[in-house]
Amino acid sequence: MKALVYHGPGNKSWEDVPDATVQEPTDVVVKVETTTICGTDLHILQGDVAAVTDGRILGHEAVGTVTAVGDAVRGFSVGDRVLVPAITKCGRCEYCQRGMPSHCQTVGGIGWIFGHLIDGTQAEYVRVPYADTSLYAVPSEVTDEQAIFLADSLPTGYEVGVLAGNVRPGHTVAVVGAGAVGLSAVLTTGLWGASKVIAIDSNKFRLEKALEFGATDVVEVGPGTVGDVVALTDGLGVDVAIEAVGYPETLLTAASLVRPGGTIANVGVHGTPVELPMQDMWISNVTLTMGLVDTVSIPTLLKMVASGRIPAEKMGTHRFTFGQIDEAYSVFADAAANLALKVVITP
Amino acid sequence: MKALVYHGPGNKSWEDVPDATVQEPTDVVVKVETTTICGTDLHILQGDVAAVTDGRILGHEAVGTVTAVGDAVRGFSVGDRVLVPAITKCGRCEYCQRGMPSHCQTVGGIGWIFGHLIDGTQAEYVRVPYADTSLYAVPSEVTDEQAIFLADSLPTGYEVGVLAGNVRPGHTVAVVGAGAVGLSAVLTTGLWGASKVIAIDSNKFRLEKALEFGATDVVEVGPGTVGDVVALTDGLGVDVAIEAVGYPETLLTAASLVRPGGTIANVGVHGTPVELPMQDMWISNVTLTMGLVDTVSIPTLLKMVASGRIPAEKMGTHRFTFGQIDEAYSVFADAAANLALKVVITP
Amino acid sequence: MKALVYHGPGNKSWEDVPDATVQEPTDVVVKVETTTICGTDLHILQGDVAAVTDGRILGHEAVGTVTAVGDAVRGFSVGDRVLVPAITKCGRCEYCQRGMPSHCQTVGGIGWIFGHLIDGTQAEYVRVPYADTSLYAVPSEVTDEQAIFLADSLPTGYEVGVLAGNVRPGHTVAVVGAGAVGLSAVLTTGLWGASKVIAIDSNKFRLEKALEFGATDVVEVGPGTVGDVVALTDGLGVDVAIEAVGYPETLLTAASLVRPGGTIANVGVHGTPVELPMQDMWISNVTLTMGLVDTVSIPTLLKMVASGRIPAEKMGTHRFTFGQIDEAYSVFADAAANLALKVVITP
Amino acid sequence: MKALVYHGPGNKSWEDVPDATVQEPTDVVVKVETTTICGTDLHILQGDVAAVTDGRILGHEAVGTVTAVGDAVRGFSVGDRVLVPAITKCGRCEYCQRGMPSHCQTVGGIGWIFGHLIDGTQAEYVRVPYADTSLYAVPSEVTDEQAIFLADSLPTGYEVGVLAGNVRPGHTVAVVGAGAVGLSAVLTTGLWGASKVIAIDSNKFRLEKALEFGATDVVEVGPGTVGDVVALTDGLGVDVAIEAVGYPETLLTAASLVRPGGTIANVGVHGTPVELPMQDMWISNVTLTMGLVDTVSIPTLLKMVASGRIPAEKMGTHRFTFGQIDEAYSVFADAAANLALKVVITP
Repeated sequence: MKALVYHGPGNKSWEDVPDATVQEPTDVVVKVETTTICGTDLHILQGDVAAVTDGRILGHEAVGTVTAVGDAVRGFSVGDRVLVPAITKCGRCEYCQRGMPSHCQTVGGIGWIFGHLIDGTQAEYVRVPYADTSLYAVPSEVTDEQAIFLADSLPTGYEVGVLAGNVRPGHTVAVVGAGAVGLSAVLTTGLWGASKVIAIDSNKFRLEKALEFGATDVVEVGPGTVGDVVALTDGLGVDVAIEAVGYPETLLTAASLVRPGGTIANVGVHGTPVELPMQDMWISNVTLTMGLVDTVSIPTLLKMVASGRIPAEKMGTHRFTFGQIDEAYSVFADAAANLALKVVITP
Repeated sequence: MKALVYHGPGNKSWEDVPDATVQEPTDVVVKVETTTICGTDLHILQGDVAAVTDGRILGHEAVGTVTAVGDAVRGFSVGDRVLVPAITKCGRCEYCQRGMPSHCQTVGGIGWIFGHLIDGTQAEYVRVPYADTSLYAVPSEVTDEQAIFLADSLPTGYEVGVLAGNVRPGHTVAVVGAGAVGLSAVLTTGLWGASKVIAIDSNKFRLEKALEFGATDVVEVGPGTVGDVVALTDGLGVDVAIEAVGYPETLLTAASLVRPGGTIANVGVHGTPVELPMQDMWISNVTLTMGLVDTVSIPTLLKMVASGRIPAEKMGTHRFTFGQIDEAYSVFADAAANLALKVVITP
Repeated sequence: MKALVYHGPGNKSWEDVPDATVQEPTDVVVKVETTTICGTDLHILQGDVAAVTDGRILGHEAVGTVTAVGDAVRGFSVGDRVLVPAITKCGRCEYCQRGMPSHCQTVGGIGWIFGHLIDGTQAEYVRVPYADTSLYAVPSEVTDEQAIFLADSLPTGYEVGVLAGNVRPGHTVAVVGAGAVGLSAVLTTGLWGASKVIAIDSNKFRLEKALEFGATDVVEVGPGTVGDVVALTDGLGVDVAIEAVGYPETLLTAASLVRPGGTIANVGVHGTPVELPMQDMWISNVTLTMGLVDTVSIPTLLKMVASGRIPAEKMGTHRFTFGQIDEAYSVFADAAANLALKVVITP
Repeated sequence: MKALVYHGPGNKSWEDVPDATVQEPTDVVVKVETTTICGTDLHILQGDVAAVTDGRILGHEAVGTVTAVGDAVRGFSVGDRVLVPAITKCGRCEYCQRGMPSHCQTVGGIGWIFGHLIDGTQAEYVRVPYADTSLYAVPSEVTDEQAIFLADSLPTGYEVGVLAGNVRPGHTVAVVGAGAVGLSAVLTTGLWGASKVIAIDSNKFRLEKALEFGATDVVEVGPGTVGDVVALTDGLGVDVAIEAVGYPETLLTAASLVRPGGTIANVGVHGTPVELPMQDMWISNVTLTMGLVDTVSIPTLLKMVASGRIPAEKMGTHRFTFGQIDEAYSVFADAAANLALKVVITP
């Protein structure tokens, strides 16, 4: 089969590799019919993720069809259309049992293993461990181009942003950064009755998208960002500030936007320390959350996509074939300039 | 009447002042029969709290008897024995209605006003605004020397440490800093079924006290602190790390102790920024909480003291009269060296 | 002034009564500019509510303007436009402090006192006790004809139905009974992301209204009701069944609709016992909730009405003046036949 | 091997049966070293549980050693000491994933299958399906005679009583019925900080045990039961009333004991309908919960037993060998008269 293989910083190639096969009785093999690229894949290519070594097949998001099942698999059969999520879940460790497979102790202390600790989904076929507890059947009302965004970006915005942020009916919510993950948070805040959703970005295209995705207000980044956002509230700031970028400045902006008793939900992947003004914050009764997605919200999100309440397909702005995967990476690597949110890659 | 008056950094005096009187129909006046000193009073005396100006009566904790009531007060009468908590609660603003009077919008955006924005409790009498919603009747089973610690330190350890930290049955809890507030957290973790409570301090006296207060383990601060604590868990760290000191190092220690998915509950008052290693923490699914006490747990704590489950009186290690208040401050200012936790001051 | 006075079962009259005045320092007087009739008013007129005695002014819902304030009132001034909710809240008793003023211990062990234990709102003026903690300012974006439904019916459907029922994103919800309160539940389930809202009634007009109010499906009552509803789910029943009628059969229907682990939220006012099939239900892990509204959700609902997410005005189907109040009662007493939901009564 | 086989109402025998073997790759076989009898076993023997048919091996609680493992089992090995809980959990269905395996859709719509839908644990060996997600390793600090009560009775009292009842620090709790399950609730309320635990029974031995197990007060059943219990509260009743018997009268007693806003947690197994006084209850803002245990609290309970906070061994009052299992049933069938709580049965 063919797959996109990592060969050290800056190097990748779409090349022949051994076929994916069932290795454990709990495995299945999935023929990949739709995949996409995540910001993390770009980090890997820059050499930022030491655990990814030469020879690793990249990618951790897929929709496809089951082509082989291990002896112990009971929930899926050959021919089933499935969503392969970013997180693998053994289902039996303490973390899986409490609904936090992001830290599955069985598969490596971290639930993100595709394209990281094992071969990934940017390939013609992918081996999926712990299939019974990890895979999701895709309802017939949901298209591949909707489902693919439920593998990682939508649950990330929803779980690490909206759920961790504890959005509740009537809340005002600010989303700092309107890229794919920030927009996923915008798209799902409505599930919890937010009264106002304010998207903040420096890119006009993304702010336009934010309004399309359900933001009630947008603020272009500038010297007056904090004041502009607070002016859209009762003067005390927002109930929930979702950080979806991953830089010290954006986290500090989020911290400045939140009212006493509010929540700062950090979704961004950080590369450096952040100096928090604890001398001012300690008295503010705020909560700061952070973390990797668990993807346990996928059943809920599938229902909401199926019922039309979440137009997940809006995330896909550009389409490519496997053969054009290099081009897909190029476009996504400079997403804002290319007016791209997420790319859709099919055979 | 006599009161302890602040006269700028380093200066205070027990002197004659005008009598406390009812000024609003919702006020009462309380004759102070027991008061104490808080770490915040020491900060004020160092000039660290700009809002406290020359002439202000200090103190925000008292137990006493009502001597006068305003026309609109319905819940308290002259002669009632009451607890005056650190936080004043108007009862009608959005923050009071959601149980977060720490940020009461009516009394100043912050609920701590005694000895800060209005005259305080280190005095023979104190005026208490919004008495109906702020005061608590003291049950007959609870002594003054128990009740006084429910004005601030016990609810602080409980609310900002144990409740914000989301301690649940079976959890392992580390408390960084075993001073009065850290020990208050130790004393109240049992209410939520912690399986292991590990107190961490550099002072042997405090560690001994921690064991008396219910800690299951103690760790003396040293180069191996983090490893020693983690070794007392299953190797992943504690579920809840309570920071009760207020320095960058102690907050970073707390952050190092917590397992994936755990909570760092910051109780300490910070004077400087803290550089958080977000490059490591973002993926850990931890939550960091912080804030001022609301004192809304006082009814629960009063019940637990009355039923004997919380031996609050153990917090009081030294006793003074109003006339010895300077000495009380001296002892408390160097509490660890003086083997002191909290001082009890009576007429 | 004039008011609607109860004179024993079946008797009421719009007559001259002494003017409403401030009696306590915490009172205000409100000039009633909009009021309405509640199902409970009909029960009173049938003599079903023993606590209501001859001479009592009826009604517990109003929007109007403050005309006088007691000495201790700080949150409202003469001229303020306010919502008078069904529940009076002292703000200081244990129940008020935990957000459950439906059982305010100060005003009578029950928070519903207007038109019940004290004179009510179907009058030119009404005295409002504990005004600071009970009244709500009406934002300028909200009209009187929207606000009036937030005095009782909308919060009842929302709090006792949607909130008590613990509706969460992705849930399927059945609402048994599509009268004013059932429709209030339909109108507010969206705040919690329900994926499917099934309204059940025997009246076609109400089912049409249910679709207008946000129901995704309707089921006309018949021998196959339970099967029809379950067929709209995955075969196991709904997550939340809201009972909004108040008869044994309707509560048993709700109980039959709910899946294992679901919630039956009883909103209906019952007049007789209900025989629950505990021999079947004990194993089902369901929860049954019930209760009087607290009206503490009014601030949230006001925000959602102001932002356009809840079209509260749709509840008002018929308009009357004070002089036509008898006619208003006649229409409302036979609401279904008159294609009425709620009536709006103005001077 | 030998096992206790059901042969229709009133008939059972300890007889030779085919050996338990691994049938599915996810199975293990456990050598039973300790088992016990549950009230449900008595119901089965009375012919009350139609799903149990002639030839079924009884029992759903065991502690023992793994003797064989299926190919897909990764969490357990031959020789491991394990707890076999009453509930089997596939780990992948919607109910298992939300922590409610009591209604596991895979194993039969109900998670209780041992001694019910498949052969049980009152045998020398037992086949355990879905072993990786169902079994629990027993820590070395926990003895077999402690662990056996964590298979069903302790988690039942804790989950269906204490957790469903939403016990919180400071609460008053009444437990109606001080048999094995009621006492399990008494034993575990302390994990949630109850301030008062009132046990109610007609049997003096059980009331004595209740005091030993942590009850603060006991009330002997009589005409004044409700008044006696309410007098132990502030006059409004208890926060949580746990019903642990299963008769209409006991459920109605529990309902009479609870204060406005409280919870009635039904643990009892009912055989007939119960007429609830909804005409009085609808306004009381109470919650009624019920259900089968999930056994998901076992990890927490194991920690608390290991740390000495839950003296589980106190539940075992009588000891028998497999050969004496008929006698064990006789003693347990008349537990109160025999001063028995739970029996311990070993090879």
